[in-house]
Amino acid sequence: MTKAAVFGTGSWGTAFAMVLADAGCEVTLWGRRAEVVEAVNAERRNPDYHPDTELPPAVRATTDPAEAAASAAFTVLSVPAQTLRGNLRAWAPLLAPDTVLVSLMKGVELGTAELMSEVIEEVAGVPADRVAVLTGPNLAREIAQRQPAAAVVACTDEAAARRLQGACHTPYFRPYTNTDVVGCELGGAVKNVIALAVGIAEGMGLGDNAKASLITRGLAETTRLGVTMGADAHTFAGLAGMGDLVATCSSPLSRNHTFGTNLGRGISLEETIAVTRQTAEGVKSCESVRDLARRHGVEMPLTETVVSIVHEGKPPHVALKELMSRSAKPERV
Amino acid sequence: MTKAAVFGTGSWGTAFAMVLADAGCEVTLWGRRAEVVEAVNAERRNPDYHPDTELPPAVRATTDPAEAAASAAFTVLSVPAQTLRGNLRAWAPLLAPDTVLVSLMKGVELGTAELMSEVIEEVAGVPADRVAVLTGPNLAREIAQRQPAAAVVACTDEAAARRLQGACHTPYFRPYTNTDVVGCELGGAVKNVIALAVGIAEGMGLGDNAKASLITRGLAETTRLGVTMGADAHTFAGLAGMGDLVATCSSPLSRNHTFGTNLGRGISLEETIAVTRQTAEGVKSCESVRDLARRHGVEMPLTETVVSIVHEGKPPHVALKELMSRSAKPERV
Repeated sequence: MTKAAVFGTGSWGTAFAMVLADAGCEVTLWGRRAEVVEAVNAERRNPDYHPDTELPPAVRATTDPAEAAASAAFTVLSVPAQTLRGNLRAWAPLLAPDTVLVSLMKGVELGTAELMSEVIEEVAGVPADRVAVLTGPNLAREIAQRQPAAAVVACTDEAAARRLQGACHTPYFRPYTNTDVVGCELGGAVKNVIALAVGIAEGMGLGDNAKASLITRGLAETTRLGVTMGADAHTFAGLAGMGDLVATCSSPLSRNHTFGTNLGRGISLEETIAVTRQTAEGVKSCESVRDLARRHGVEMPLTETVVSIVHEGKPPHVALKELMSRSAKPERV
Repeated sequence: MTKAAVFGTGSWGTAFAMVLADAGCEVTLWGRRAEVVEAVNAERRNPDYHPDTELPPAVRATTDPAEAAASAAFTVLSVPAQTLRGNLRAWAPLLAPDTVLVSLMKGVELGTAELMSEVIEEVAGVPADRVAVLTGPNLAREIAQRQPAAAVVACTDEAAARRLQGACHTPYFRPYTNTDVVGCELGGAVKNVIALAVGIAEGMGLGDNAKASLITRGLAETTRLGVTMGADAHTFAGLAGMGDLVATCSSPLSRNHTFGTNLGRGISLEETIAVTRQTAEGVKSCESVRDLARRHGVEMPLTETVVSIVHEGKPPHVALKELMSRSAKPERV
């Protein structure tokens, strides 16, 4: 029986532990908080997220990272993107030899502008072919209800991607393999920034036509950046690009969406954080994405607009008006 | 002052007549029904659609096609796709010399599997460089409210596309030029079929993850067909492809969406037509799109699935399950 470790008892980590168990793996879920770990072991559910989902018996939880990591064929990482480096530093010495590290995270590290797979390679000291990412249109709430979904498992080593595919394929969860790790990660990371922009537009009272244009132009600038970084343009037209973006922008429950809507209504960043009691990933990632774009000499006007609204205090109606009146006349992606 | 004729007083034809007038054109709107034409001239509004929108004085209406067509620089066609051939046959002798014919229609002709631009060239006897299409994320209801939107004007003659762009550019309506007429038209036509599939999925109770996957795979098969037919893959990643598709699938008011939702709930095609009192364009176009795909040897599994549900009586849950368990393992568009 394949052993898998999942680090992180958040919404997606918990749901994906269930997917792995449903696919036949023996799963150890690591959590920082003892009360969550005890609830998983005693009541078979995560009371913080998905309280109505009964977890399969093959999911056990622990607060001991060494116990979780021991002899895992797949070590799945699902912690907040900006905490990955610190967490993984502590876990690196505990990892099973030859384990494949799998990122569920969608973000770009602040300061370094590194993708999650790059942070993993660096901190865990493993080659690229031992690092995989899982992404796609995977709203965790729906997966926890075992509603049908497709996903992408990407690894530069196609054989490793296929092994991971086998480890998480269930009747309701359908993973496709891909070897374009950079493209898959960028799609997931920039999507949060675009979702924030769409939320802002909605908060300003713009309609479905304008929002569809923002989504389209957002994916176009993501594709431009990706291709410059060596990714395959097709990845962005697939589940990890368009699929994930459309699912996120369709879901009124998305944190980035709610956050953006508040900003678009004219509520300040500070008030929005106070009201929602958390920061959306797009708020953190937009500066890293902008830095990445500048480093590669790629224009990302939508990302720049989000940064100017979120971090430079530009009024949304001014910023979005500037964006929408840019003088790009012939349409070209 | 540029003169434009708009044939068709439907939702989009009426809204676009307003856009042209707002951009400075003198517009003659042709309608079949005298009561609508009189309402436009007397009350400055179309009571059937957009009763709350006041049309500009530069829009006049007539039931006389010769009067509408006379000396128009742009002859805009906005009738139901399947009635274009019959209508245009009557109007062809009346067209102003050198007029550019502009299609607002999104469909593929039943029987011939011809795109609207092809029907126009054939029936009006004009070369391709005199035929343009206008498409993109343009829900007519929002345009009639002058909410911001972007669009694509496509013509093989770029100078004609630029002239049309100038004739319909307003502060709220922003057209981009493109020379890929086939790609722009296909994006619009197949979108109705995909929207029908998404509606069916919603009616079956599927969530945002599954719907985003259908949208993604639907655009991928549209792109495959387009590229085989000589279109540019970038067009499908732009406003005429992804943009239009996302706007349509976001709008709960879309006819294709409502129609599909009923089918997905297990209501028969006959009952659905009886309840909605009209047929969605995707219902008519799905067979033509399938024929076009077969003629070009392109696999379009989503389109085939829609045809099997809509026209061959296959139960949606059986058809969609087959579609979602197809064995395409590596992800590739």
